[in-house]
Amino acid sequence: MSGIKVFAPASIGNIGVGFDIMGAAINNPGDEIVVKKGAAPGLTIDKIFGDHGRLSKEVEKNTAGKSALALMKYLGKEEEPISFEIYKKMPFSSGLGSSAASAVAGAFAINEYFKRPLSKPELLPFAMEGEKLASGAFHADNVGPSLLGGILLFEYNSLYYQRLYSPEGLTLVVIHPQIEILTSEARAILKSEISLKSHVEQSANLGLFITGLMKGDFECIGRGLKDIIIEPQRSKLIPFFEDVKKSAIDSGALGCSISGAGPSMFAIAQNTFTAERICNAMVEIFSKNKIQTTSYISPINNEGAILL
Amino acid sequence: MSGIKVFAPASIGNIGVGFDIMGAAINNPGDEIVVKKGAAPGLTIDKIFGDHGRLSKEVEKNTAGKSALALMKYLGKEEEPISFEIYKKMPFSSGLGSSAASAVAGAFAINEYFKRPLSKPELLPFAMEGEKLASGAFHADNVGPSLLGGILLFEYNSLYYQRLYSPEGLTLVVIHPQIEILTSEARAILKSEISLKSHVEQSANLGLFITGLMKGDFECIGRGLKDIIIEPQRSKLIPFFEDVKKSAIDSGALGCSISGAGPSMFAIAQNTFTAERICNAMVEIFSKNKIQTTSYISPINNEGAILL
Repeated sequence: MSGIKVFAPASIGNIGVGFDIMGAAINNPGDEIVVKKGAAPGLTIDKIFGDHGRLSKEVEKNTAGKSALALMKYLGKEEEPISFEIYKKMPFSSGLGSSAASAVAGAFAINEYFKRPLSKPELLPFAMEGEKLASGAFHADNVGPSLLGGILLFEYNSLYYQRLYSPEGLTLVVIHPQIEILTSEARAILKSEISLKSHVEQSANLGLFITGLMKGDFECIGRGLKDIIIEPQRSKLIPFFEDVKKSAIDSGALGCSISGAGPSMFAIAQNTFTAERICNAMVEIFSKNKIQTTSYISPINNEGAILL
Repeated sequence: MSGIKVFAPASIGNIGVGFDIMGAAINNPGDEIVVKKGAAPGLTIDKIFGDHGRLSKEVEKNTAGKSALALMKYLGKEEEPISFEIYKKMPFSSGLGSSAASAVAGAFAINEYFKRPLSKPELLPFAMEGEKLASGAFHADNVGPSLLGGILLFEYNSLYYQRLYSPEGLTLVVIHPQIEILTSEARAILKSEISLKSHVEQSANLGLFITGLMKGDFECIGRGLKDIIIEPQRSKLIPFFEDVKKSAIDSGALGCSISGAGPSMFAIAQNTFTAERICNAMVEIFSKNKIQTTSYISPINNEGAILL
């Protein structure tokens, strides 16, 4: 194989209190793309692995293909013969930013193949083209972190973002129970109106969460990580949510909520030792109730998409 | 006069995007209290200056008296003979935290008189007793900054707070037009429900405002300082609001909104030179429309209440 291989990581959208505006990248899982010279002009998706036949090889209908093509057009390289092999290593509809990772990998692969004509932040609008195809929505809370790493806060309906700091030791626990929730379903369940009171309470929580991150104050992070608006509505779609959350908090988690639209859940720990204890406790609840899980323990991934 | 004199400053409640949860102290105006040994057991309010006869001298019905008394009871000093002279130097119903400053001054005066048995943060619940008497609400977004200085972010319905940083140079412009808005009226005008979309947008704004403060990023502060929920409803109570706001922004303000429940308006500038230009422009609009104003230019007051 003469091509190059890129990796774009999973991400935790919303992080509970930042619905549609905040997300964090983790180290694993993630999608990979091998990009090399193709046989015919233009982009061709030659192989897709691990998608269980669910993804289209038609470039315009494929998340990675769409973002790759958008960048190729911008670079005036639309007719260059390029071949993609997509290694889909992330579960679909998991709440882990699967489509975002594909979208990021597509644009990132093209940029690497052409020797980085654009900076990483400049790839954001192209990666969003793929994400829009997949989710129909204009939120970069998964695409941003998958591309750029870190915990990012976005302006509403905008690609303007700020990188938040995170304290040494902060560790994410992610549990993916093997049930599927469609993002569209998880979105449809949400009430379009909320009380002003809830808004004020949630605003304080988000503010404290951000302030805790910026100051490296774990207590403050924990006080802030309380989603009183989205979680109570969406958690109904996740069996045993309350028990699993309780087990995380009882095991020392600073907070625990739904990753993206679910069904994955995440918890935040102060260190890897506590993270492992939390992870075991959460998995045990699902396991006891005959629900299989995949779990991940990761610091904040501050790199985002990389060349492997 | 053998007594001591204390000062508690005005504050900007809400700061636009932090309704009921965020506030900042400014240097002027503020209330003063002279505290000295009284003639009879217990607290007596002997004189009140500058209140135009609007305040009660009855301790339990006076904001400063109420918080002072709460602290005296806690300290077991309820029967000590103490005399207050209150110098009300702040306008009523101005949106500048007038009642909060009185409440803070009362508790702070007692603590100073008894040689600081409590730390400043420990005075917060006592000062809140006075504020509750005045406003009926349990929000420390004015009392906190008036007592402790700085820009503070509070947990909802709680006295837990975090001090936010602020960049060197950040300057506040406050314009008080001589019209009166009752806090109760300004509160009654607010819709009790908002759209989820507005919540998300405002959350992003608050998050960016806080992040900008913590990073010292003026552009980010400006992007965040956009209140799309409260301001559109309350600005109707302030004549020429849009014109005045536009003049502030056109003169270089990072943002401009309503201080507390209004009618005072505030703007944030990057330095004192710009602040003066902004101040002149805002005053001119009111003046042209025959509305008298009092204006203040101040950095963030990081001290809060002080012994004079």
